[in-house]
Amino acid sequence: MTITSNALSSRTELCTAVENELSGLIGKRAGAATAYGPHFARLWALAGQNVLGGKFVRPLLLMETYDALKPPGSTPPEQRETAITISAAIELLHYSFLLHDDVIDGDLVRRGHPNLIGSLLAEAGALPGNIDGARTGSDLHWAQTGGILMGDMLLAATHQAFARADLPHQLRLRLLDLLEHTINETVAGEQLDVGLGDGIIAPDLETILVMCGYKTATYTFELPLRAAAALSGADFAVETALATAGRHLGLAFQLQDDLLSTFGDPRRHGKDPFSDLREGKETAIIAHARTTSAWPDIEPFFGSPELNGTEAEHVRQCLSDCGAETFVQGLIDEQLQAFNHLLTNTIPPSARNVLLDLAAQLEGRQS
Amino acid sequence: MTITSNALSSRTELCTAVENELSGLIGKRAGAATAYGPHFARLWALAGQNVLGGKFVRPLLLMETYDALKPPGSTPPEQRETAITISAAIELLHYSFLLHDDVIDGDLVRRGHPNLIGSLLAEAGALPGNIDGARTGSDLHWAQTGGILMGDMLLAATHQAFARADLPHQLRLRLLDLLEHTINETVAGEQLDVGLGDGIIAPDLETILVMCGYKTATYTFELPLRAAAALSGADFAVETALATAGRHLGLAFQLQDDLLSTFGDPRRHGKDPFSDLREGKETAIIAHARTTSAWPDIEPFFGSPELNGTEAEHVRQCLSDCGAETFVQGLIDEQLQAFNHLLTNTIPPSARNVLLDLAAQLEGRQS
Repeated sequence: MTITSNALSSRTELCTAVENELSGLIGKRAGAATAYGPHFARLWALAGQNVLGGKFVRPLLLMETYDALKPPGSTPPEQRETAITISAAIELLHYSFLLHDDVIDGDLVRRGHPNLIGSLLAEAGALPGNIDGARTGSDLHWAQTGGILMGDMLLAATHQAFARADLPHQLRLRLLDLLEHTINETVAGEQLDVGLGDGIIAPDLETILVMCGYKTATYTFELPLRAAAALSGADFAVETALATAGRHLGLAFQLQDDLLSTFGDPRRHGKDPFSDLREGKETAIIAHARTTSAWPDIEPFFGSPELNGTEAEHVRQCLSDCGAETFVQGLIDEQLQAFNHLLTNTIPPSARNVLLDLAAQLEGRQS
Repeated sequence: MTITSNALSSRTELCTAVENELSGLIGKRAGAATAYGPHFARLWALAGQNVLGGKFVRPLLLMETYDALKPPGSTPPEQRETAITISAAIELLHYSFLLHDDVIDGDLVRRGHPNLIGSLLAEAGALPGNIDGARTGSDLHWAQTGGILMGDMLLAATHQAFARADLPHQLRLRLLDLLEHTINETVAGEQLDVGLGDGIIAPDLETILVMCGYKTATYTFELPLRAAAALSGADFAVETALATAGRHLGLAFQLQDDLLSTFGDPRRHGKDPFSDLREGKETAIIAHARTTSAWPDIEPFFGSPELNGTEAEHVRQCLSDCGAETFVQGLIDEQLQAFNHLLTNTIPPSARNVLLDLAAQLEGRQS
C-alpha cells in the first residue's frame, strides 16, 4: 500500500496545523514562565523543543480520522479548529507520560538524544562550582525533579485544553470522560509494567498482554480514534468499532516492537540489540519461553546487566528455537485478523483508509 | 481570640460537607479502579484514607470565605454545592502536591505516619517471596512509582472537578486561569526549593522568601481565597485584596514553621527538633546567619546527617545569638502588619473574621 500524493500533501498541512497549535499552547506558557526565573523557564524551553520535534502520530491519527468522518468544508472551520486543539492536547499528554516514564525508569536518553532529564543533568554538571562532577547525585536529583514537575505541568496543560475547548456541554463531558478513562488505564498499565519489572507482579502472558494494551494502545490508538468520533458527531457504535480496531492495532504494534528489539536488525532499529534481555524486560516473548523446556537455559542470562554478545546471541537462538518468536508472531497475526474483520464490517468506508495506512506501517517495519 | 460556638458548629457542618464531597470524588474513582486489579485499587484506597484523614484547611478557608461573602440562603443551593466541589478539588490538588513532594524528598513518613509511599513499601516487603527484605531497592522503586502515579491521578481529578463544575463559561475560565496560575507558581516554588537543597541555586534571603511564597502560600491561602471571591461574584478588587492578605499570612505561617522547627519545643511540635539542621534546609534563619560573623562557627555542622544533640544545641544557640531568630520574628511581624493593614482597609467586613480566625491560629502556635 502506498500513500497517495494527495494524502501526503494533506498530511503535511495537518502537521503544520498541529505544530502551530502546539507552538501556541507551549509558547504562551513558556512566555509566562520567564517571570519565575531561568530554571523554570528552561523547563518549558526544553519541553517545547522535545514536543515540537515529535512526529505527531496521535494528533495525525485523530485529525485524519476526523477529516474522514467529517470532510473539511462540511462544517464551520471553528469546529475543526477545536479538533486540532484536542489533538495537540493529546500530544502534550503523550509527552507528560513519557517524562514520568523516563523518571520511573531512570532514563536519560530517548531515541539517541538526551531527554529533558538528560539535558537538565548535563546543564547542571556544567554549572560553575561543579568541579569534576562532585555533585553527581544532587545533579541527578535536580534533573529528575525537573522531569516530575514538567510532566505535572504538561498533564495540567492537557486538561486545560480539554476544559477550555469551545464545545457543547455534553460533548465536553464526553471528552472529559474519555480523558479520565485514558489516564486511569495508562497509569494502570505503567503500574503493571513497573510491578513486573520489580518482581511484585507475576510475569504471566495474560498480565503482559493486558499491560501492553493499557500502557500504550489506549492513549496512542483508542484515545485519538474515540476523540475523532466524538468530535465529528459519529454514532457511539462507530466510536466503539474504531476504538476496538485501534486497540488491536496498538497491541500488534507493541508486540512487534518486542520482536524487533529482540530479533530485529540493530542497524535498522538503531537500539541496543540486547537491552531488553539485559534489563530483564518481561515481554510476551519471555512469557512464552518461561512455559517451555528451554527456560532453564535462558533464565541465568535473563536480566543480567553484564550479558555479553556471545551469551546474548545464545539466548536469542534459544528464544527462537523454543518457538517464542513464532508464538508472538502468531499473536500479532491474531490482532491483525481481528482488526481486519472490524475494518470490513463495522468501520465507515471513509475512515477505513486512515486505519489501513496505519496498518501498512506495521508491514515490513524494521524500526 | 476565641471561636464562637456558632462558628464552631458551622465549621463542623462544613467539614462534613467537604468530607462527603471528597468521599464521592474518591469513592467513584476507587470503585472504577477495582477493574484494573488489586495493586491499582490499592493506590486509590490509600489515597482515600490519607485525603479523608486530613484537616481540610484549604476547603474550609474557601467555604468560610464564600459563606461570608455570600451568606447561605442568599443564593440557590446548587451554587454553594459547586463551591463545595471546588473546595474539595483543591484538597485533591494539595494531596497531589504532597505526594510528588514526598517522592522528590524521598520521604516515607508524614506527621508520624507512613505516607502512601511508606505504606506501599511496607506492603511490598510483606509480599511472599521477599525473604529478609531481599528486594529493598526494587520495593522502594515500586512504592515511589506508586507515589508519582497517584499524584498524577489526583492532579487529573482536580482538573476534572474544575472542568465539569456547573458554572457559567466565563466563571469557569476564571477558575481555570486561577488553577493554572496556582500550579505554575507552586511548581516554580518546588523547583526553587529543590534547587536550593541541591546546591543549584544560591541560598540568598530573597530567593528563600520567594520560594516560601510560591511553594505554599499560593495554593494554601491565595487559591482558596481567590476561588471564594470568584465563586461568590465579588469584585476583582476584593479578590485581589483577599489574595494579597492571604499571601502575607501564608508567608508568616511558613516563617513561623521554620522558627518552630529550629527553636520550638519538640514535645509540642512532635518533630525531630534538629531535622532542618541535619538536612541542611535553606531557611530564612540560615540565610540571615550566613550574613553574620557567626556563620563560620555554624557552617561545619549545617547539613551534617550525623549532627549529635550537643552539636545541634550549640548551633541553635549560635543562630539565636547571631540575631537570626529575632530577624525572622521581625519578618513575621512585617507580614502580619501588612496583613492587618489590608484587613482594616480593603477587605469587606463580613470576610474579616474568617481571616482573623486564621491569623489567631498563628499567635501562640506551638506546632
